[in-house]
Amino acid sequence: PEAAPSPLDLVVIPGDGIGPELVDSALQVLARVAALDGFEYRLTTVDAGATAYRRTGRALPDGALERLRAADGVLKGPVGLPDVRHPDGTEAGLLGGLLRTGLDTFANVRPMRLLPGVTGATRHGPGEIDYVVVRENTEGLYLSRGAGAATPHAASDQLMVTRVGTERVVRYAFELARGRMGAAADGARRVTCVDKSNVLRSYALFRRVFDEVARDYPDIGTEHLYADAAAHELVARPQTFDVLVMENFLGDILSDLGAATVGGLGMCGSLNAGTDAAYAEPVHGSAPDIAGRGLANPVSQILSLALLLDHAGRTSAGDRVRGAVESALSRGDFELGERGQPVRGTQSVTAAVCENLRPG
Amino acid sequence: PEAAPSPLDLVVIPGDGIGPELVDSALQVLARVAALDGFEYRLTTVDAGATAYRRTGRALPDGALERLRAADGVLKGPVGLPDVRHPDGTEAGLLGGLLRTGLDTFANVRPMRLLPGVTGATRHGPGEIDYVVVRENTEGLYLSRGAGAATPHAASDQLMVTRVGTERVVRYAFELARGRMGAAADGARRVTCVDKSNVLRSYALFRRVFDEVARDYPDIGTEHLYADAAAHELVARPQTFDVLVMENFLGDILSDLGAATVGGLGMCGSLNAGTDAAYAEPVHGSAPDIAGRGLANPVSQILSLALLLDHAGRTSAGDRVRGAVESALSRGDFELGERGQPVRGTQSVTAAVCENLRPG
Ligand SMILES: CC(C)[C@H](C(=O)O)[C@@H](O)C(=O)O
Ligand SMILES: CC(C)[C@H](C(=O)O)[C@@H](O)C(=O)O
Repeated sequence: PEAAPSPLDLVVIPGDGIGPELVDSALQVLARVAALDGFEYRLTTVDAGATAYRRTGRALPDGALERLRAADGVLKGPVGLPDVRHPDGTEAGLLGGLLRTGLDTFANVRPMRLLPGVTGATRHGPGEIDYVVVRENTEGLYLSRGAGAATPHAASDQLMVTRVGTERVVRYAFELARGRMGAAADGARRVTCVDKSNVLRSYALFRRVFDEVARDYPDIGTEHLYADAAAHELVARPQTFDVLVMENFLGDILSDLGAATVGGLGMCGSLNAGTDAAYAEPVHGSAPDIAGRGLANPVSQILSLALLLDHAGRTSAGDRVRGAVESALSRGDFELGERGQPVRGTQSVTAAVCENLRPG
Repeated sequence: PEAAPSPLDLVVIPGDGIGPELVDSALQVLARVAALDGFEYRLTTVDAGATAYRRTGRALPDGALERLRAADGVLKGPVGLPDVRHPDGTEAGLLGGLLRTGLDTFANVRPMRLLPGVTGATRHGPGEIDYVVVRENTEGLYLSRGAGAATPHAASDQLMVTRVGTERVVRYAFELARGRMGAAADGARRVTCVDKSNVLRSYALFRRVFDEVARDYPDIGTEHLYADAAAHELVARPQTFDVLVMENFLGDILSDLGAATVGGLGMCGSLNAGTDAAYAEPVHGSAPDIAGRGLANPVSQILSLALLLDHAGRTSAGDRVRGAVESALSRGDFELGERGQPVRGTQSVTAAVCENLRPG
């Protein structure tokens, strides 16, 4: 008889604010999908974020990076609390710098899909919006996070783009496009490079490297858009996009824009992927104002779990989770209010998604 | 008898691509509104932009800045041609750096209004979207335009924010808010500060200075949004905004986003305003692919003219021009296609606006 595959080794970071209740919701979904899909997993919890910072003076405990790197994947809730700050005004409990750089998860993958039963901000309907933002995650303007130069009279941060850093994230985007079914309305597979190469040298390098990498993917179409034009087109014609790749700061802004067109941040999961590590997290924040009250929408956390399962080689489980969210939404098994909040609370969504997880 | 007021001294920069035909359209409107409003003006033309660069090796002729500074205002068409570039890939024919910095026009004012008869990309209707983006125009990430450090392996640009530069543009935004009728849906006057102060020191300084200036305007409400949240809200809830103020690069991106919600860039005029000079220009580019064929939408150029007239103290003329655009649109006197192009050509719009300019 074959040796049983070893259980999936997952680390959980519950995070701040609504983080713990969202992660709890996703873990209920995980338990059910694992049973259906017939795989085992074990969980380790790591306390990190603003609450941890307040308690211990460190946002991430000693040795945590090694533990996260050793895992098959990390499921993270949102972190950060507005009143936990460094003296310069930047937030102290955020893990972006520590994890994205520390784990070298260079690709931040943010799928944008307008699901059935969801009303996005634009005039588009379900099925019309289906693209992925690939955000470079380790350099760009974020390299300066909290480390810029500052006097009381001026402050400056640096936007740095490297050839190596750009090449790997662009390659990731092209591979992703190749793996997709051609979600763009015209059925074509295409990668759009977003930059501001007409004004800034860093972005000009980003575009140059994009063009070089593109030569290795003659089967995939390419498109160039300046950041301002991309912001326009993502609102006016989101149905034309398939995969987009861009510098860190642009990815931050344009993925939130995209979220508004698919029903809000509560509908968007994300994966931070590198060569040695990966972690999944919602795109939204920790919403401390509604924390602990069972009011938050767990869909983004559940869709993040699906991305993590894909990444850990459990794509059938990932597909199942996405399918369950979609079928719960189309059947109206849970209801979201005008601002994306679940009308009957977090648990109503969790239960509906679990019920829609089907065997077979 | 009183001495007749001296004629308005206007400089015209026709620009590249569709620039000359748009400026021609705006000048027809100017001629008519000046007759109705009973003021005189004289025009001087300055050749500048990518075509000028190609011909002379300089995008702006010698002595031009002095001439522009001496004028009561400058009406500029879009400039730039994609194939006129510096060796580093940045465009050579753009005037942003030369004019915005050269004339120290620190405030870039971009009103976003969804006009009657226009379908924006979101589900909002005419009257619901009416806000102004005030973009800092002389520093921020654009300070590095074409001047960043670059090797074949890495390139970097600097985002610099100064106290003095921020203070003046924030003050401009508050004064603007005071002068508006409270366009926000709830009738309140409000200035929104957009930054990424949770991550970057430069933006943290921007926010700190904003808060200091705000104390001088206790009658005006304030709001803070991170750039990513602002991108989301400008799509999801544009009706909640009144005046927004932000760093240069953010202003570039978010104003194009806003344009999509009010029918596209073709509907958005802008004014670059400083202490000693001002110039008005469309937010969109020079569209060389359709140049010279009478196909472009001149509304942005005409609305830019209106902003210039306001700035030159001719607000009744500015209001008249805006009123004419609005009434031509509500009466269906011209028609715009799905991508904002005038169905019966540039001249159909010019004629309709001129006809709707009413005496009295
Ligand atoms: C919380 C913040 C620092 C973070 C970022 O800007 O990267 C968030 O907005 C995100 O997009 O993950
Ligand atoms: C053409 C380009 C350099 C310019 C800018 O980025 O400022 C334009 O997009 C604008 O918004 O005026």
